[in-house]
Amino acid sequence: MGSNSFGKMFTVTTFGESHGEGIGCVIDGCPAGIYIDEEMINRDMKKRRPGFSPYVSPRKELDEVQILSGVFENKTTGTPIMMWIENKNHKSSSYDEVKNVIRIGHGNYTYLKKYGIYDYRGGGRASARETAARVAAGAVAKTLLGAIKIKAKIIEVGGEKEDFSTVLKKVMEEGDSVGGVIECVISNVPAGLGEPIYEKVEANLASAMLSINACKGVEFGEGFNAARMKGSEHNDEMEDGKFLSNHHGGILAGITTGEDIIFRVAFKPTSTIKKPMKTMTLDGQNTVVMQKTNVRTDPCVAIRAPAIVESMSALVLVDFILHGNT
Amino acid sequence: MGSNSFGKMFTVTTFGESHGEGIGCVIDGCPAGIYIDEEMINRDMKKRRPGFSPYVSPRKELDEVQILSGVFENKTTGTPIMMWIENKNHKSSSYDEVKNVIRIGHGNYTYLKKYGIYDYRGGGRASARETAARVAAGAVAKTLLGAIKIKAKIIEVGGEKEDFSTVLKKVMEEGDSVGGVIECVISNVPAGLGEPIYEKVEANLASAMLSINACKGVEFGEGFNAARMKGSEHNDEMEDGKFLSNHHGGILAGITTGEDIIFRVAFKPTSTIKKPMKTMTLDGQNTVVMQKTNVRTDPCVAIRAPAIVESMSALVLVDFILHGNT
Amino acid sequence: MGSNSFGKMFTVTTFGESHGEGIGCVIDGCPAGIYIDEEMINRDMKKRRPGFSPYVSPRKELDEVQILSGVFENKTTGTPIMMWIENKNHKSSSYDEVKNVIRIGHGNYTYLKKYGIYDYRGGGRASARETAARVAAGAVAKTLLGAIKIKAKIIEVGGEKEDFSTVLKKVMEEGDSVGGVIECVISNVPAGLGEPIYEKVEANLASAMLSINACKGVEFGEGFNAARMKGSEHNDEMEDGKFLSNHHGGILAGITTGEDIIFRVAFKPTSTIKKPMKTMTLDGQNTVVMQKTNVRTDPCVAIRAPAIVESMSALVLVDFILHGNT
Amino acid sequence: MGSNSFGKMFTVTTFGESHGEGIGCVIDGCPAGIYIDEEMINRDMKKRRPGFSPYVSPRKELDEVQILSGVFENKTTGTPIMMWIENKNHKSSSYDEVKNVIRIGHGNYTYLKKYGIYDYRGGGRASARETAARVAAGAVAKTLLGAIKIKAKIIEVGGEKEDFSTVLKKVMEEGDSVGGVIECVISNVPAGLGEPIYEKVEANLASAMLSINACKGVEFGEGFNAARMKGSEHNDEMEDGKFLSNHHGGILAGITTGEDIIFRVAFKPTSTIKKPMKTMTLDGQNTVVMQKTNVRTDPCVAIRAPAIVESMSALVLVDFILHGNT
Repeated sequence: MGSNSFGKMFTVTTFGESHGEGIGCVIDGCPAGIYIDEEMINRDMKKRRPGFSPYVSPRKELDEVQILSGVFENKTTGTPIMMWIENKNHKSSSYDEVKNVIRIGHGNYTYLKKYGIYDYRGGGRASARETAARVAAGAVAKTLLGAIKIKAKIIEVGGEKEDFSTVLKKVMEEGDSVGGVIECVISNVPAGLGEPIYEKVEANLASAMLSINACKGVEFGEGFNAARMKGSEHNDEMEDGKFLSNHHGGILAGITTGEDIIFRVAFKPTSTIKKPMKTMTLDGQNTVVMQKTNVRTDPCVAIRAPAIVESMSALVLVDFILHGNT
Repeated sequence: MGSNSFGKMFTVTTFGESHGEGIGCVIDGCPAGIYIDEEMINRDMKKRRPGFSPYVSPRKELDEVQILSGVFENKTTGTPIMMWIENKNHKSSSYDEVKNVIRIGHGNYTYLKKYGIYDYRGGGRASARETAARVAAGAVAKTLLGAIKIKAKIIEVGGEKEDFSTVLKKVMEEGDSVGGVIECVISNVPAGLGEPIYEKVEANLASAMLSINACKGVEFGEGFNAARMKGSEHNDEMEDGKFLSNHHGGILAGITTGEDIIFRVAFKPTSTIKKPMKTMTLDGQNTVVMQKTNVRTDPCVAIRAPAIVESMSALVLVDFILHGNT
Repeated sequence: MGSNSFGKMFTVTTFGESHGEGIGCVIDGCPAGIYIDEEMINRDMKKRRPGFSPYVSPRKELDEVQILSGVFENKTTGTPIMMWIENKNHKSSSYDEVKNVIRIGHGNYTYLKKYGIYDYRGGGRASARETAARVAAGAVAKTLLGAIKIKAKIIEVGGEKEDFSTVLKKVMEEGDSVGGVIECVISNVPAGLGEPIYEKVEANLASAMLSINACKGVEFGEGFNAARMKGSEHNDEMEDGKFLSNHHGGILAGITTGEDIIFRVAFKPTSTIKKPMKTMTLDGQNTVVMQKTNVRTDPCVAIRAPAIVESMSALVLVDFILHGNT
Repeated sequence: MGSNSFGKMFTVTTFGESHGEGIGCVIDGCPAGIYIDEEMINRDMKKRRPGFSPYVSPRKELDEVQILSGVFENKTTGTPIMMWIENKNHKSSSYDEVKNVIRIGHGNYTYLKKYGIYDYRGGGRASARETAARVAAGAVAKTLLGAIKIKAKIIEVGGEKEDFSTVLKKVMEEGDSVGGVIECVISNVPAGLGEPIYEKVEANLASAMLSINACKGVEFGEGFNAARMKGSEHNDEMEDGKFLSNHHGGILAGITTGEDIIFRVAFKPTSTIKKPMKTMTLDGQNTVVMQKTNVRTDPCVAIRAPAIVESMSALVLVDFILHGNT
């Protein structure tokens, strides 16, 4: 059974590897008659693109999305929308030296255990590059959200809540990396979205977030802090038809209340670092890996994750909207 | 589209309301030839039953599971297993006084917004009682886990990590409630379980946990703490074929490494408390609700959640096991 | 993976064996606010009940449906509807003599091959009794069909198109059985129902029909006869906004045209007959089986199949309706 | 909800329109380590290609499949396999004259009713061209079938069972078309494949066949003829561990018996013909359509359907095989 599709009503199937011909997605279930153009999709693509700041990897991924089906004269026709992002520069020679090594914190160990085979060129399918296809799909999903606004931002880098630059500069000098926290606020949400029991809004958003590479936790409303509160503090009182607070984070019993949906997502530090670390070769020998100086990685993966958090949120919401109230 | 099923290979559909005739589940996809008896199921049921300690609600739910299909001469036959738990005492008169009130922190507000109707007898479908059916299904799932062991326990109550009794006693005296944190450790896990991309082990466990009532967050391995660590601290080095640490919590790139799966789940404080709080009636008038002294609730919902966390974990794992490595 | 659910939006999961405690179903995805009562369901149940004519088996199945969840004060609440039909008389002693024999035309051979185990009491899950749960679900589905009318009837028994009684009387005297053909006409269908490519109206109806016991074929519109026609004969011309004929049977490119949906379903003759036939015991010995004179079977299974054909059609249509035009 | 995916374990999602950039598919769930090359896929593509006989349309579709993901060094890696078939010659000018006309027997009427929009360039998504993607997917599926052999052939053209050429020559001269019947035999099938109740082998094959354009019926084993037989004729006796006949067509109670699976599929005559026929313009005016002499259509769509019947059969079987016996 495949695991490369997300969503039930608005189903996105992604495909492609970081160092193959390209990556892409098929959206099945997008209503007909929606205006879509490539420029609009590509605007969103730029948000996750590395190379736009001194603190992300200097790779120049062009990430140009081509719409190859499902759109006719800039309108969706109700048929599957296939979008393709060619890997313009997919030479894998720079990975040759780590080809036979269990890359710390990466999927090559587990893929090998599971499949008995893996694509050693870069991260293959487990690469963060797969998320480009999610952003393309999210850009289409957003056109169906009406007034709903999704805004994610970094609120913490390596434990720091304010001066991110100093933290990042320091770890880059040390050849190290840091983790980060992203907060996402979804506003103008109608009450009544979501499904009780196993398709709660929190459950589907949590599944979406934990499907993002390097994500290690998610919390809604007061989150883990709620575990330290009393009922009288956490309960949101109502007056004159309005909630007086929003500790619940916009969701009660799995269904939206109309208040802002608020959640936070934790990302672990980038696994690939320049500091030497002990690992194994694939044939079982101990070894020490120190990443090359010219390696293409970010010191903090969270920095370009907001676009992905927003896209996955859009996919979750559009599914609930198309689902309706039945 | 319904939202009352969980799992793809071992699919559990739950049904029933807290104050109807009973609750239950259908398991579809359980392999044939597995030994199952009602006593075995009922042993697990006792773990989540209220009334077993001074700090949980004094209700006497009998929760006796009857297996009504799919098992012949104590062996599963490959056909759907239906289990039924009669609601022995489902008089709803005690709810009459809150019938027309938006119950703080509960689903009646959101159910009404979504469906335009709700079952005002207790929590209806949104009641914690629904989780009894999950525990029954989890008991069957556990028989398919082989050597894998799942153990959940409370590690924090109202911010306290050690003396839970004092905290609980105090909030009960105050007519208030507290939240809590549960930690779950899954050991003897084979490497290679789980699916990449959208069915990562973390993603499915997160979805499972956030589908439990009152759950507001989940974190894996170092979780939110990972966001405050450096790569050189968080990366798990390997030597002589073994990981030297387990910051990753047993999962890399969505697939198990063979190390223990470790995660924590945050529960908000019980919404129903004796302290007076401002809310609304269903027809829009302001009101103040103070819960009756004889009300049947726990001061901390997390106290009986470990059995549910374990059951949902078992459902997630059995699905991956039956899925296999294709 | 289970195979006991039907439908995506209005999902029916059936459970139970012919000689166990009972059979039933869970409907997940039924909209809230629909009027449902047990009497209404039980009226439909009577249509498939054996014993209402001299040509169906004289068993007195009471088939009384109890609604055990999802309906409150006779209105659906949007939560799963569980319906239960107790097996009032499930003594299996009459099956003891065929317990170790491969019953000709039945599932015990294939179930044994597949599961290595089977419930030898009657047909178990493969019994026609499972269809009672489908009829109960279909009765709920019909309440959502608006003006659409579904009418199935027998049009052929043992090759005869008119005098069914004579054919049936004759085969009963011979201790034999016959097959039959049912035609179903669905009228007042709005244009635009159905989904292209893999969820065509014909594809889903075909799957529904071939899931009925003893069904061996289905054809739409002109069906197999279309293969013998010319394009100029088969094409339906249009004039003044109307089709001048309906050779296409109400569906073009998988989507309804607004014309009547017409299809025919072929049923094989009842496998259990009084004439002696050669078969095997389960441990591989040759044997001859002659059914007991007091056996409970119909000479033609098609006779009580119209209610099942209608119910399955209702389930297919309600799924398309709830699916909408996205 | 999308309807462009087929299969649960080995899921194929097709996309693309006849006159867009190209068509293709994504296979999700193919096991890792399988040898695949483009040449092998393209060999199968040739079987459905038009232009190989005087009786199919003279179009020169090159239909060259490119594998763009999921295969590394000619081995599947367990990740999604995307295959792309560029539309080399997709100018749609030849369709301009029927752009505003309800094309008899085609999907433009129903697509317009459903979506309020359609791609008027050729058949768009409803074109037989979509089946090229199915054949590509089927070629991959076949590599997983082991000893199982699938063989489909035309057994009837326009009612003729022997001399197809004369029939085809005649209708071509008349500017008309004919229907046809295909028979498919699947041999070396292990007993125990398939799932009872709603995923019976017949049900899934029927759904697969009726999803093929122009298909109007399917029958298994004796099929509609079974409805005219007696039980004593239709029942397959057993002796010395073997069935003495195969009226049941290889399937009992939805599960394979190990005998050959045999079924027949009816195709209606090609809708597009040169004879003038009455239809409507999209804005409601009566009109008469006579197809141009240089039009690209086959006199009998069934002629190149065997490759598609085989491919869809392979997709159904591989799903049951990967499903296993749980």
